[in-house]
Amino acid sequence: MILDRINRENDIKKIPESEWQRLAEEIREYILTHVSEKGGHLAPNLGVVELTMALHLFMDFPKDKLIFDVGHQCYTHKILTGRKNDFDTLRQYHGLSGFPKRDESPCDSFDSGHSSNSISAGLGFAAARCLNKTDEKIVCLIGDGAMTGGVAYEALNNVSLVNGNFIIVLNDNQMSISENVGGFSSQLSRLRTGKIYTSLKDSVTDSLEKIPGVGDPLVRAIRRTKNSLKQLMVPGMFFEEMGIKYLGPVDGHNIKEVLKLLKYASRIDGPVLVHVVTKKGKGYEFAEKHPDKYHGTGPFELSTGETKKGNPSYTDVFSKAMLRLGEKNESLVAITAAMADGTGLKKYKVNYPERFFDVGIAEGHAVSFATGLALSGKIPVFAVYSSFLQRGFDEIAQDVCMQKAHVIFAIDRAGLVGNDGPTHHGVFDIAYMQGLPNMVLMAPKNGHELTEMMKFAVEYNGPIAIRYPRGEAYQGLKELKNPIELGKSEVIKEGRKVCLIAYGSMVKNAFEASLILEEEGIDVGVVNLRFAKPLDYDMLRDVAGKYDTVITVEDHAVYSGAGVMISDFYEREGIANVNIIHLGIPDKFIEQGSTAVLYKDCGLDIDSIVSKVKEIY
Amino acid sequence: MILDRINRENDIKKIPESEWQRLAEEIREYILTHVSEKGGHLAPNLGVVELTMALHLFMDFPKDKLIFDVGHQCYTHKILTGRKNDFDTLRQYHGLSGFPKRDESPCDSFDSGHSSNSISAGLGFAAARCLNKTDEKIVCLIGDGAMTGGVAYEALNNVSLVNGNFIIVLNDNQMSISENVGGFSSQLSRLRTGKIYTSLKDSVTDSLEKIPGVGDPLVRAIRRTKNSLKQLMVPGMFFEEMGIKYLGPVDGHNIKEVLKLLKYASRIDGPVLVHVVTKKGKGYEFAEKHPDKYHGTGPFELSTGETKKGNPSYTDVFSKAMLRLGEKNESLVAITAAMADGTGLKKYKVNYPERFFDVGIAEGHAVSFATGLALSGKIPVFAVYSSFLQRGFDEIAQDVCMQKAHVIFAIDRAGLVGNDGPTHHGVFDIAYMQGLPNMVLMAPKNGHELTEMMKFAVEYNGPIAIRYPRGEAYQGLKELKNPIELGKSEVIKEGRKVCLIAYGSMVKNAFEASLILEEEGIDVGVVNLRFAKPLDYDMLRDVAGKYDTVITVEDHAVYSGAGVMISDFYEREGIANVNIIHLGIPDKFIEQGSTAVLYKDCGLDIDSIVSKVKEIY
Repeated sequence: MILDRINRENDIKKIPESEWQRLAEEIREYILTHVSEKGGHLAPNLGVVELTMALHLFMDFPKDKLIFDVGHQCYTHKILTGRKNDFDTLRQYHGLSGFPKRDESPCDSFDSGHSSNSISAGLGFAAARCLNKTDEKIVCLIGDGAMTGGVAYEALNNVSLVNGNFIIVLNDNQMSISENVGGFSSQLSRLRTGKIYTSLKDSVTDSLEKIPGVGDPLVRAIRRTKNSLKQLMVPGMFFEEMGIKYLGPVDGHNIKEVLKLLKYASRIDGPVLVHVVTKKGKGYEFAEKHPDKYHGTGPFELSTGETKKGNPSYTDVFSKAMLRLGEKNESLVAITAAMADGTGLKKYKVNYPERFFDVGIAEGHAVSFATGLALSGKIPVFAVYSSFLQRGFDEIAQDVCMQKAHVIFAIDRAGLVGNDGPTHHGVFDIAYMQGLPNMVLMAPKNGHELTEMMKFAVEYNGPIAIRYPRGEAYQGLKELKNPIELGKSEVIKEGRKVCLIAYGSMVKNAFEASLILEEEGIDVGVVNLRFAKPLDYDMLRDVAGKYDTVITVEDHAVYSGAGVMISDFYEREGIANVNIIHLGIPDKFIEQGSTAVLYKDCGLDIDSIVSKVKEIY
Repeated sequence: MILDRINRENDIKKIPESEWQRLAEEIREYILTHVSEKGGHLAPNLGVVELTMALHLFMDFPKDKLIFDVGHQCYTHKILTGRKNDFDTLRQYHGLSGFPKRDESPCDSFDSGHSSNSISAGLGFAAARCLNKTDEKIVCLIGDGAMTGGVAYEALNNVSLVNGNFIIVLNDNQMSISENVGGFSSQLSRLRTGKIYTSLKDSVTDSLEKIPGVGDPLVRAIRRTKNSLKQLMVPGMFFEEMGIKYLGPVDGHNIKEVLKLLKYASRIDGPVLVHVVTKKGKGYEFAEKHPDKYHGTGPFELSTGETKKGNPSYTDVFSKAMLRLGEKNESLVAITAAMADGTGLKKYKVNYPERFFDVGIAEGHAVSFATGLALSGKIPVFAVYSSFLQRGFDEIAQDVCMQKAHVIFAIDRAGLVGNDGPTHHGVFDIAYMQGLPNMVLMAPKNGHELTEMMKFAVEYNGPIAIRYPRGEAYQGLKELKNPIELGKSEVIKEGRKVCLIAYGSMVKNAFEASLILEEEGIDVGVVNLRFAKPLDYDMLRDVAGKYDTVITVEDHAVYSGAGVMISDFYEREGIANVNIIHLGIPDKFIEQGSTAVLYKDCGLDIDSIVSKVKEIY
């Protein structure tokens, strides 16, 4: 195995060119084996094996700075920087992260997880390099999908602020997580099919001429190209117009060619974009064919590509509810930000293509766009992951809430998501939304209630959000079907002394804890809060009259969630007889791991709730 | 007066072409007179008089939808839609808003205030038009400054999602609020100086040919242009590459020419950008020369352009502090998002140009950029208005807080800002920041303390924010100079029974209320909270031991600010003897008006605090 000779950063430089291709195959094999066992981001990582190798042949770690956009494509980088043997713990609790982590290695320069900000961060490094008078290379690796995010454009617009070489590697795999959308994507496809290898403006040919090695074939090629005005003008014009030199496209699976182009790029005194074309899922048939399915995956059978199908998830329930609501109501419009599959809107797209919009990775735009639709009498549903919706916060405040627009936020992946870790946990949405006037916040106790809340949201007229977690929809408590009423909670169980007021998915844990306690003769009350805003003050008063202690339970940052608002109500009302305890996510970033382990760690699993009650009962 | 004949929407269509120019002059005079008396956005409105007239000659209100980006340039639109006689109340309490307001007129289709989202909203209207099968015109009016915001780009990338004519009018005045920055801006300047009137690709010339009026000079001009390949390729390429037809540039002060181009634009079956070049401040010498100074202004002397200079503002204090800190510490870097003047960084820019970055209207980028700088050992200070920082929320969470980066947020315009109204009030920053792990939140009681907190922030190592309001820095309580300590409050005054715990600028009101009460023999305690996060638990325990009632006072949304966290602490700790009352901004969007009136309305002025104390004492 050539891979045995790769034990730390820069070891790859000792591997002769003749062995590069075999090493790439070994790395691909290594990734496939481990991801099929542990789950992880497969297709993005298979796509950039050779590209990452070329970057490591080109760069000097940890001195040089490689900034991964999103970061889910960093596995080869980790293998090449001494973390190969940690892959057994990939994405596990206390194990190797699936994303770059500065705490893990000095070769990771920036912790990422969300999309489109790598160029901004890179420009920060570049500005500092200039002030520090150092000479490290700075390279941002960004996918074509991430280029649909506005922050990427804001950064491109600012490249002129920094001096010195600054390399943006555009990993063009013709995909976001779903298929790519929009004008930028069609530009790239024009570039991709262009015949010429490199197109540069005069200034660049000139600057290349000043560099030793003038007679180089590349420069000669550019000179020839200059004769064809059209070719000189069209490819890369978008970037060139932004003041960024454009190089490419190059086959991202040809290590030698990529390395050559990177070396050229590094000689340019200024920002340069290297356009690399790769195939997402490269080398694994099933992933090449269905890169979206194998974008991120749980464990699967290597030979068949089959993943274990579990019980219906909340996303599945939402998906069905949308289909039914869309059939009944012609005003219902669905919006996703490059997550048609992940948010469960694929079937809606097929059934109601004219009422489905995938706007790309562009959450801010999605929210303002939804507002325009709502003000024209449509009922837009923006289905989005909790942590990604953070990108649309200002638009939620200014466009939706200020104008009382009837926009429905279907907030998926609310709460702890598990193995993706801190960047993907959706534990701040109550915090950033409950302060906004006119906003209504809901969370269902089980799958059935999610469907009912969707119906309620469509009937309601104003800003409204429903949060629900990743994973299996709770099937329990089916018999409890109190109609959804604005700001009204639901009593699950009466009890004595202690009342658990739980929100959303935590109703399950609270209820099941109460059953265990019951067997031990401890009889606690359980309330399904349903609405974090507006709160059910009548219920809160009632609970205070009947119980000594209220325990709030929510899968959200504990000091900025619904529990705090409940405390505040009691305090303001001067209801002094009731003690209050909050269970929730502590005030720190929660690491990766199975949700079972993480919820236990946060004291939110059934056993922890049981113990907490016993402690005080 | 021609203006006398303009009393409602579409009246302008009855004015003969020969009188257009005179009407423009009368409108300009009208705006100048009223803004010089009441204050308001002067330069942006003077710049678009003719452009807005052309739009009103072209469109049919209220059927057609005109979406103003930012919205501060809507005065001519208001004059032309029956609101002329309300200009005496411009930006006053209960008066005419300085921004578009759907509640004010059916001719206002979208309430705006922040930048760069007009195209997104317009696309929402266009998508709905398609579903509703209606045929209203949809026009977005966006400045070149606003085009530096990522949301605008996200929208441009999505224009292909909608069918039918969709007009983006680019009001190119070569300015953000400050001078423009970045690659996009230099592209525009190339376009602006281009010789040709209109540049279109074959497909557009073809589609124009299909339209009645083929022999039109414009089409002939385009045909001629086609012979010059270079001219055909270069201008507007940025937009054409995004799938948007480009028309222009046209002189925005020539009503006839603008109208002609708009009519052409409306015949294109798809998105089209009309590039209009205007002069910010047009027609008022002082504003033409200093468009940034006269961007938004208080009342001024029409003949001399002189504004009244008040006492030093918090912004002035920050400005001075930055200069001194920058001198002492070479690592200090200042960042602004197109607000060098407004945030007080102009002098820093002059003194330390290499450590100053204006990134344009691009708050998300600014935050990630700052993180890159911080991780390279620099100390970035991002000076930004509270409500605009909302655009960078996700980056604050993911980049700054998750990585514990030493980024300083100097949050200006925190609290109620007055006449700009709801979109500009900075009343959510505690809400969206206090839930984030690792974040430290401070607010100073007076100018001196702002300087001390800046020093503290530079010494501290981690994410840290200081909020301070618009307007005059409090000069009182100068003698109280307890050193700033992390999470420690400051006792201003001991008292009996009632303790006022005030945050930031509200310390002034609380303290002055206590002096009035003292004269009446009512002796309340006053505490300067200083840190909203971490809270000073020792002080809170101490206060609970000494007083019966705690009144929290903050210029922030009351149910998601520091007060709630204080309630929650008492509730969790089981401290039952103390009553708590919160004074703050109620859970609704606060309208425009003088801050004096607005604070009184919210019960946060000195008299209200006095009354509240008497009520319970």
